[in-house]
Amino acid sequence: MSEKLKPAARVAGQRQDVWSIINEAAAASPKQPVVNMGQGFFGYNPPDFILNAAKEALNRVDCNQYAPTRGRPRLLKALSEAYAPHWGRKLDPNKEITITTGANEGESRPAPERHLLDLIDSGQGMLSAFMAFIEPGDEVIVFEPFFDQYISNIEMPGGKVVYVPMHPPKDGATKTLSAAEWTIDFDELERAITPRTKMLVINTPHNPVGKVFSREELQKIADLCLKNKIIILSDEVYDRLFYVPFTRIATLSPEVEQITLTVGSAGKNFYATGWRVGWLMGPPHLIQYVSAAHTRICYSSVSPLQEACAIGFEQADAHNFWTTCINDMQAKMKRFNAIWDELNIPYSIPEGGYFVMVNLAKVQIPEDYSFPPHVASRPRDFKLAWFLIQELGVAAIPPSEFYTDANAHIVEDYLRFAVCKPDEVLEEAKERLRGLKKFLKQ
Amino acid sequence: MSEKLKPAARVAGQRQDVWSIINEAAAASPKQPVVNMGQGFFGYNPPDFILNAAKEALNRVDCNQYAPTRGRPRLLKALSEAYAPHWGRKLDPNKEITITTGANEGESRPAPERHLLDLIDSGQGMLSAFMAFIEPGDEVIVFEPFFDQYISNIEMPGGKVVYVPMHPPKDGATKTLSAAEWTIDFDELERAITPRTKMLVINTPHNPVGKVFSREELQKIADLCLKNKIIILSDEVYDRLFYVPFTRIATLSPEVEQITLTVGSAGKNFYATGWRVGWLMGPPHLIQYVSAAHTRICYSSVSPLQEACAIGFEQADAHNFWTTCINDMQAKMKRFNAIWDELNIPYSIPEGGYFVMVNLAKVQIPEDYSFPPHVASRPRDFKLAWFLIQELGVAAIPPSEFYTDANAHIVEDYLRFAVCKPDEVLEEAKERLRGLKKFLKQ
Ligand SMILES: Cc1ncc(COP(=O)(O)O)c(C=O)c1O
Ligand SMILES: Cc1ncc(COP(=O)(O)O)c(C=O)c1O
Repeated sequence: MSEKLKPAARVAGQRQDVWSIINEAAAASPKQPVVNMGQGFFGYNPPDFILNAAKEALNRVDCNQYAPTRGRPRLLKALSEAYAPHWGRKLDPNKEITITTGANEGESRPAPERHLLDLIDSGQGMLSAFMAFIEPGDEVIVFEPFFDQYISNIEMPGGKVVYVPMHPPKDGATKTLSAAEWTIDFDELERAITPRTKMLVINTPHNPVGKVFSREELQKIADLCLKNKIIILSDEVYDRLFYVPFTRIATLSPEVEQITLTVGSAGKNFYATGWRVGWLMGPPHLIQYVSAAHTRICYSSVSPLQEACAIGFEQADAHNFWTTCINDMQAKMKRFNAIWDELNIPYSIPEGGYFVMVNLAKVQIPEDYSFPPHVASRPRDFKLAWFLIQELGVAAIPPSEFYTDANAHIVEDYLRFAVCKPDEVLEEAKERLRGLKKFLKQ
Repeated sequence: MSEKLKPAARVAGQRQDVWSIINEAAAASPKQPVVNMGQGFFGYNPPDFILNAAKEALNRVDCNQYAPTRGRPRLLKALSEAYAPHWGRKLDPNKEITITTGANEGESRPAPERHLLDLIDSGQGMLSAFMAFIEPGDEVIVFEPFFDQYISNIEMPGGKVVYVPMHPPKDGATKTLSAAEWTIDFDELERAITPRTKMLVINTPHNPVGKVFSREELQKIADLCLKNKIIILSDEVYDRLFYVPFTRIATLSPEVEQITLTVGSAGKNFYATGWRVGWLMGPPHLIQYVSAAHTRICYSSVSPLQEACAIGFEQADAHNFWTTCINDMQAKMKRFNAIWDELNIPYSIPEGGYFVMVNLAKVQIPEDYSFPPHVASRPRDFKLAWFLIQELGVAAIPPSEFYTDANAHIVEDYLRFAVCKPDEVLEEAKERLRGLKKFLKQ
C-alpha cells in the first residue's frame, strides 16, 4: 500500500496485549473448557429488578432514541439521590444538576448553577476527562499497577504519563496479608511532581491490588494535589464493593472536591459490564469541560439501559441490593481464597473489588518447560499464567502488564484472579488449582 | 480557579450549538407542546421482532457482559450476510472476517486473513477512523452541509478540515426539484486537494440534503481519490432508506474498495438511535488500524443490543422489513411535503434518508420582529427556525450550522425537517404550518 495511506503513529505497531495473549492461550489449552478467572466480567446476571427495568424501557419510544448528551434526566436524578449519603449532602435534582445538551456553555449564557454529574460510559468518561484538560506535554501521574486504558487515553491528547509504583508487602512471597500493605512511597510521589503535572489518577477500591486507600493516604495525596494545583481523577468504579471503610477522596474537604473528578460505573455496580453506562461527578468548573469533550467523542450513550440503571438506583435499597453485593462478593472471596490457604500460597486479602492478587513465588515451573516466544520474552508472571492455563486449565492475568518494563519485576510472582463468577466455577477452579501441589517448593 | 486547572484549548469557549438553541427555543415557546421535527430521532419504536430480540438477549449472561472489542461474533456474521447482496459477493464468515480483541495486530502474528467489519458505534467509528489515520496537519475534505460531528472528530487528532460546498439548485427558491439538483463543483473539489489531503468524507444518502449521489458523481470522486491516494470515509448510515437507485462507493471497483471505509448504523436501520450500535467496513489494511484506535477510545460497545441487532439482520427479510422501511418513510415524505405543495413553498424532493430541505425565501418575517441576540447574530435560517417555533410551534433545524461562516449564505432560506415521526405528528405539524399563509409573499 502507498505511503500516503499509512496509519497515524498512535496506532501503528504495538506489542500484543495481555487480553489477547491470555484469550488465545486459553483457546489453545489442552484442558478445555478453561476456567476463566482472567477478565473481570460477571459470570451471572444482574438481579431481576434491573433486567425487568431494561425490558420495560425497551417498550418506551423515548427510551429507544438518543438520550440527551449529558444523560437521561431520570438517571441523573437517581444518581444524585443514590450518591447523596456518600457525598455527605443531598444534591437538589432541580437546582444542583443541570442537564445540558453538550457544548452549550457559551460565553453569552448565564453561568450554569452546578454541573455535578455527567453521564458517560466510564471508559469514555476518563478519556473525556483527559481530552478536556490535557494539552500536549502535560503530565499525568498514574500509580502502577494501572488500569491499562488510562495510558492510551492520556497519550491520545498528547499527555505524558509519569509512573509511580505501588509496592507490595515485603514478605508478600511468604505471608498472606491485607491488600492494605501495598503502599505508595510518598517521597517517590512528591519527586514525580513537576510544574507540568496537570492531573493525577487514583483508583480505589483498586484493580488489581484489592486495596481500599485509607483516609490518611488519601489526605496525603490530596494535600500534594492541592499544593501543586493538580486535578485528581478518582476512578471509583468498584465503589459498591468494599470490605473495610471506604473513603471517597472528593469528600475529604470542600477544597479537595473542587479539584476532583470521580468516575462511577453501572457495569460494575449492577453486574452488567456490557451495558456501557457510567458517570463522572465533580464541580461545575471541571465537569463542563468534560461534557464538552464528551460531545466531541460520541454524541450520547445508550438510552434504554440508562433508564434501567435509573430504576436500579431507585430500587436498590428496597431490594437491599448494595448490602447483598458486598456480602455475596465477600463470600466468593472467602470461598475461592480457601484454596490458597489450603496450598499455603500467600495472597493479598482484598479490602474491596472482585480481584485477588496471589503470590506464586513458591510455584516451580519445570526447568525444561517451553513457552512460545511472545510469552518467553515477558516476565515470570506471564509464564505462570501460561503454565496454569496449559497444565491446570485455569486462566488468570499477569499483572506486570500493568507496570512499566522498569518496574515489572515488582509483580513477577503475582497473578490476578477475578472472583465475580458463579460458585460452581470457583469450586471447579479450586479443584483444578489443587494440581499445583506437585509444583510447590515448601 | 487557578490558571493551572484550566481546560485544554480544544474544549474552551465555543459558540452555542444549534441543538441547544433549538431545544431551548422550543422549551420557551408559547405554543406548547412544540411539534419537534428538528432532531433526527424516530417518533416510534423498532418493530417487535427486534424489541423481543433485545429482551431475550437481556436474559443471557454473556449478552450482559463485555462484548469482544471488535463486536459480538453473531452480529459480525449477520452483517456479513446482510451486506453480501450489496457488496456484490458473499463474505465467508469464517474466513473473511476475523474477530480480534483490539490491539493485537502484533508484528509477530500471522497476517489476519481479512478484517472486513469492525463493530463500533457509528459516531465513534468515524472518530476511530480519523484517529487511525490523521496526523496533526493532515487535511480532510468535507462537503458542506456536513454532519457536525465530523468536524470535532477530525480536529481531535489535529486534522485540518478543508470545506467544499454543495450548491443548491439555482431556482431552488421558486421551484420544487429533486435533491439530485444539489451538486458538487468538481473543479472546486479538485482545487481543494493538496499533498496533505489524507481523507475525504462523503455522506450518501445525504443529511440534510436528501441527495443520493449518482454513480457518475461517485466515480468522479473516487477517481480523484485514487489519483491522489486519499482514503474515502463513506458515511452510509441511511443506507436502508433510498427512493432512487443507491450506489455504495466501495462497490465501484476493487481499487476503490481498497481505499474506502464505509460507516453503517443500527440506530438508523432499526429506528433505535439510542442503541448506539454501528459498524465500519473496509479492507483489512485500513480496518486493522481503526480497530486499534477504537480499543483506545472505549473498550467495547453495548453488548445486549448488539445481539438484538444481529437477530434484526437475521430476521429482517422474513419480516420484509427493508422494503417496509422504504415504503413507510416514503409515505411519510409524501404526507408531510403535501403541505409545501399546498402553500406553494418549494423544497428538495428527497432521494433518500428522512430529512427534507424546504426553501422558505417566500416567508416574510415582520420587520419589527425581535430576536434574542444569539439568534439575531446568525443567518436568516436561524431566524426562520426561531420564528416557526414561536409563532407556529413547529421546530426545524437551520442548516447554515452545517456550513462554514463564509458559505452560510448558501442555505440561509432553508430549514431541515425530520419526517421520521408518527403520522399524527406530521398532520399536526401540517395543520400548524398552514399558519404560514399570512406571512407569504407570492
Ligand atoms: C479500575 C477500572 N477502571 C475502569 C474500568 C472500566 O469500567 P467500565 O467497564 O465501566 O468502562 C475498569 C474495568 O475493568 C477498571 O478495572
Ligand atoms: C450523516 C450522519 N452520519 C452519522 C450519524 C450518526 O449516526 P449514529 O446515531 O448511528 O451515531 C448521523 C446521525 O444523525 C448522521 O446524520
